[in-house]
Amino acid sequence: MFPGSDTGSLAGAPAATAVFTTVLTEGPVSRVGLARRLGLSSAAVTKAARPLIELGYLHELAATERTGPGAGRPASPLAVRADREFFVGVKITADELIGVICDLCAQVRATARRPLTDTDVDSVLAEVGRLVDGLLDTPPEHRHRTRRLGLSLSGDVDHTTGLVRYSPFLHWRHVPLGERAARLTGLAVTVENDVKALTAAEHWFGEGVGAESFALVTVGTGIGCGLVVNGRLVSGAYGVAGEIGHVVVDASGPDCHCGGRGCVESIAGTDAIVAQARERTGHPDLTLDEAVTLARGGHELLRGVFTRAGNAIGCGIAAVANLVGPTRIVVSGEGLAAYDLFDAPIRTSFERQAFGAAARCPLTIRPLPFEEWARGAAAVSIQSLVLP
Amino acid sequence: MFPGSDTGSLAGAPAATAVFTTVLTEGPVSRVGLARRLGLSSAAVTKAARPLIELGYLHELAATERTGPGAGRPASPLAVRADREFFVGVKITADELIGVICDLCAQVRATARRPLTDTDVDSVLAEVGRLVDGLLDTPPEHRHRTRRLGLSLSGDVDHTTGLVRYSPFLHWRHVPLGERAARLTGLAVTVENDVKALTAAEHWFGEGVGAESFALVTVGTGIGCGLVVNGRLVSGAYGVAGEIGHVVVDASGPDCHCGGRGCVESIAGTDAIVAQARERTGHPDLTLDEAVTLARGGHELLRGVFTRAGNAIGCGIAAVANLVGPTRIVVSGEGLAAYDLFDAPIRTSFERQAFGAAARCPLTIRPLPFEEWARGAAAVSIQSLVLP
Ligand SMILES: [Zn+2]
Ligand SMILES: [Zn+2]
Repeated sequence: MFPGSDTGSLAGAPAATAVFTTVLTEGPVSRVGLARRLGLSSAAVTKAARPLIELGYLHELAATERTGPGAGRPASPLAVRADREFFVGVKITADELIGVICDLCAQVRATARRPLTDTDVDSVLAEVGRLVDGLLDTPPEHRHRTRRLGLSLSGDVDHTTGLVRYSPFLHWRHVPLGERAARLTGLAVTVENDVKALTAAEHWFGEGVGAESFALVTVGTGIGCGLVVNGRLVSGAYGVAGEIGHVVVDASGPDCHCGGRGCVESIAGTDAIVAQARERTGHPDLTLDEAVTLARGGHELLRGVFTRAGNAIGCGIAAVANLVGPTRIVVSGEGLAAYDLFDAPIRTSFERQAFGAAARCPLTIRPLPFEEWARGAAAVSIQSLVLP
Repeated sequence: MFPGSDTGSLAGAPAATAVFTTVLTEGPVSRVGLARRLGLSSAAVTKAARPLIELGYLHELAATERTGPGAGRPASPLAVRADREFFVGVKITADELIGVICDLCAQVRATARRPLTDTDVDSVLAEVGRLVDGLLDTPPEHRHRTRRLGLSLSGDVDHTTGLVRYSPFLHWRHVPLGERAARLTGLAVTVENDVKALTAAEHWFGEGVGAESFALVTVGTGIGCGLVVNGRLVSGAYGVAGEIGHVVVDASGPDCHCGGRGCVESIAGTDAIVAQARERTGHPDLTLDEAVTLARGGHELLRGVFTRAGNAIGCGIAAVANLVGPTRIVVSGEGLAAYDLFDAPIRTSFERQAFGAAARCPLTIRPLPFEEWARGAAAVSIQSLVLP
C-alpha cells in the first residue's frame, strides 16, 4: 500500500505535456528539434523540460549531433529515463487475469497470470490484488517505483470515472472498478476498454506513433476496433466507437446477439465460426482448434467457413477505410492465431470494397500475444501520468 | 478582375484565428467570454482582436451585459461585420451551375443558375465566368468587396492545390481547376469536394456548430458523407473519407460501379432505385418522379424499392454511428425530396443496427435545397480567409 504516495499527473503547462509526450513517443530529440516540431521558442522548451529533468523523468544524452552546418554548440538530445517509474497493467478476461509490469517506455519487465474461477466482483478484485502484489516483487525494487495500475476489460467502460457500465462476459453492471481497485492496492488506477487500451499502446508506443490517424482491429470472440483520427482516440459522443463487429455486411446474414442482423461478429466472431463449423460438419462438439486443424488439412467446407469470416472482416475493414481513411490498419487478436486461414480472404474483400485510393491503406495482419492486452492497460496508465 | 487585390488569409497568430473563428461561428462574444473559452489572457484576446477590428472584420457591439455580479465594467461583445466581405460559391453539376453570393456569415445574398450543355473544361469554365460575373453585379456594390470564389463538385479533389483528380460524372481527370478559375476570374479560388464543402457549411454555420463530432449524409445519385471528428473535418490519409455510399450492407447485393458488391449506393442511389423500379414494374422508361408518385399512391412493389433503399441507408448510417459515434447525424440531399418514403425505413434499420448507446445519436432527415450546395462552396471560401 502506498497511502502517502503522490499520484498526481505530471502535466503542467501545455508546453511541458507536449515536450514530454514527444520525447516519450518518438525517442530522443534535441531541444532545437523539439522547438521546431512543437512551434515553441528554445526558451520555452528549456523551461518546460527543466522540472521533468529535475524529477528524473527526462535526462540529457551526451551530445552526438550538431544542430546544423556551422553551428557552434552541439545539441544534447533529451531522452526518457525508462526506469524512473513502473506501471502495472492487468487485462481481465472471463477466466484469467493477465498482468505485466512495464517501464515508462511501455517495455514489459515481467508478466504473470492468474486463473479466475469466479467472475463476481469481489473474487476478481481479490485475484487482481494478488497478481499486482506478485508483479511488484519481481524484482522487489519495482515496488517503490510503482504508483499506478491500469486495468482493461471488454465492455462499456467510463474511462473518466473508472466505472464499468456493462461488461457482458463478466455479467457486471455499474461496477466502480477504478475506485475499488485503488482502495485495494493503494495505487492510482485507470480503467479502460481493452480495445481502446490496446489502441493507446499502438498510438504511443507501436505502429501508430506519429500517425494522424490509424485503426487497430481486434479479432476474437468479439471483433472490435480502436480508431485514432486527427491525432486523438475516437471515443464516440455516446461512449460508442470502433464497433466494427456490429457493422452490417450481409443484410440477409445471421441474427446477432446485439439485436442486429448480418453484423461482422455474427459471421466472423469465434462463437459464430464454431457454430458454422459444427453445422457444416455435423459434429456438435467440434472445437475451434479442431476446426482450424481440419481446415488447414484441406477440409473444404471448413475452409469455406473461414473464408466467409475473413470476407466479412475485410468488408468491415473496408468500411473503416472508406469512412475514416486511416494511414494504416493493423488487424490482430487471438482469433488470428489462425491467420493463415484469414489472411487471403481479408485482403481480397478489403481490396474489392475499399473505394479508390482507400485501397492504398496498408493492412498489417498479425497474431496478438495475450500479454499485449495487459501492456495496453499499462500504456493507459502511463498516459494518465503524462496527460492532464 | 482584381489583379491588385490582396487575397491572403487573415490568419495571423493562432490566437487571432481562434478569436475570429469563435466569433464567426458562435456569434457575439465578450472579450471576457473569449478569454475564458479559449484559455487566453484578456490582454491576449485584446491584442488578437485589434487588427481584426482595424480591418473592419470585427466590431464592438454596444455594451448589453455585465461580466458578473458586482462587475464594474460592462462587457462589449465582439461581433462580425457580415457585409465586410462577400464570397461567391458555385457548385458544378453535370448539367447545371448553381451559384450564390454570401456574406461573411454565410448568409445567401443572391443566387443564380446556368445550364451546362457541355462538360469539357473550357466550356464549364466559360460558364463559371459568366455566372460569377452576374452574381458580382447583384447588386453592383458586391463586386468591390468580393475577392474569393469557392467551387465544389462531386469527385476526388485535392483541396490544397485546387486540382480535380477525378470527377466521374464530368469525365475530368487531373484538371487544375483552381488555378484556371483564378486566372479567369481574378479571384482567389478554393476547390473542394461537394460533400466536404456542405459539411464545412454545417460545421461553421449550421447544425454542427460547437459539436466535437458530427456527420452529414447526402443522398442522391451518389451517397456521400462528411465527417467531423475531434473538431476537424476528416479528410482521409489517402484522400478518401466519408464514402458511406460504398460501405457494403448486403454481401449478396447487386454489383456496384465501384467494383464492389452490395454497397449502399448500389441499392439506394438514384440510379439503383430507378433500375429496380423499372424491373419491378416492367416499365423500362419509368422515371424517378413517376416511381415516387406511384409509391406514394400505395404501389406495394415500388414502396418495397424505397423501403429497401431506406434500409440500406439506415445500415450505412449505423456503421457511421458504430465506428465514429458522432454527436448528431444529418441526412439530406436531393434524393430526399421523397423523404416521406425513406424516413421510416432509415430510422428502423438505424435503430436495429446502432450498437447500444449509439442509437441515442439524433438523426435529422430533411430535404436539401440545391442552393445549399453552392453555399457550401462559399463556406469553404470563407474558411480560406480565416484559417492559416
Ligand atoms: Zn451485431
Ligand atoms: Zn460501391
